[in-house]
Amino acid sequence: MPVTIEIESIATVVGGHTVPADDFQGGVESVIRLDERFPLETLAGLAEFSHLEVVWWFSKASPSDVALHARSPRNNPAWPRTGTFAHRNHRRPNQLAVSHPQLLGVDGRDLRVTHLDAVDGTPVFDISPYFPVMGPQGEIRVPTWVSEMLDGYWAPADQRPGE
Amino acid sequence: MPVTIEIESIATVVGGHTVPADDFQGGVESVIRLDERFPLETLAGLAEFSHLEVVWWFSKASPSDVALHARSPRNNPAWPRTGTFAHRNHRRPNQLAVSHPQLLGVDGRDLRVTHLDAVDGTPVFDISPYFPVMGPQGEIRVPTWVSEMLDGYWAPADQRPGE
Repeated sequence: MPVTIEIESIATVVGGHTVPADDFQGGVESVIRLDERFPLETLAGLAEFSHLEVVWWFSKASPSDVALHARSPRNNPAWPRTGTFAHRNHRRPNQLAVSHPQLLGVDGRDLRVTHLDAVDGTPVFDISPYFPVMGPQGEIRVPTWVSEMLDGYWAPADQRPGE
Repeated sequence: MPVTIEIESIATVVGGHTVPADDFQGGVESVIRLDERFPLETLAGLAEFSHLEVVWWFSKASPSDVALHARSPRNNPAWPRTGTFAHRNHRRPNQLAVSHPQLLGVDGRDLRVTHLDAVDGTPVFDISPYFPVMGPQGEIRVPTWVSEMLDGYWAPADQRPGE
């Protein structure tokens, strides 16, 4: 039986990207601002870490975006039809995402980061330090479509068409 | 203002560890069983990936375990007092966790994995493939207490005292 729980955002993304985008996520700084209901000491020691693991909500997406089938990523027929859970986009149940921004500094409740692919205003449900020992263990393998698709993922945002 | 959402489990951990533990998480296989309400094609192509990123719930924990202060990890005074969000344990708001198990195979709705540090019966809220390009970028740094604390994290489960 499915289990339903309520979760409450603990922080918000401030600044950085303003529009969700497939690529051009690089070269942008933003802030993850911890909610004022949390004492400052809940962040003690976090600045010693280089990277965070952040669970956030695709809040710009609509529940009707969820797609429970297989399709070519980005609808590009060059790439194989793959399922909802073989993708990382917003067309998934619960519309949660996990990102691994680099932590530049901690100023009060503001975590200054780069490499955060969530837009301004995004509700954040968890923040933790990235522990390599709890990352993937052993050799990592992905199909070729992933590398082809994400070749420009961290390209600088100011090279985005229209910027 | 905090944002509250409801999330519904999409899968359940079957087998593997039965008791939450700080260490001895290694050498155990388990299954992440996708709920039957999802068509099989939502898993199409997932077997091409070596690792998953899994968002799950510390369902054995109590809401009263949440600790909004700084303390020495595992209450070991040798390690510095650090805050809720500098840890990865269950004493956090929302009591969500993220793990990166290795995917051994896909049998119908059963994802056979190893290196999954969630116990039998754990509700899972998201499953995605691990994309290295969306992992931490650049050099990763952690304070020394993390490496000291987790020296035995992936030690074989059958070496756990009492097994």
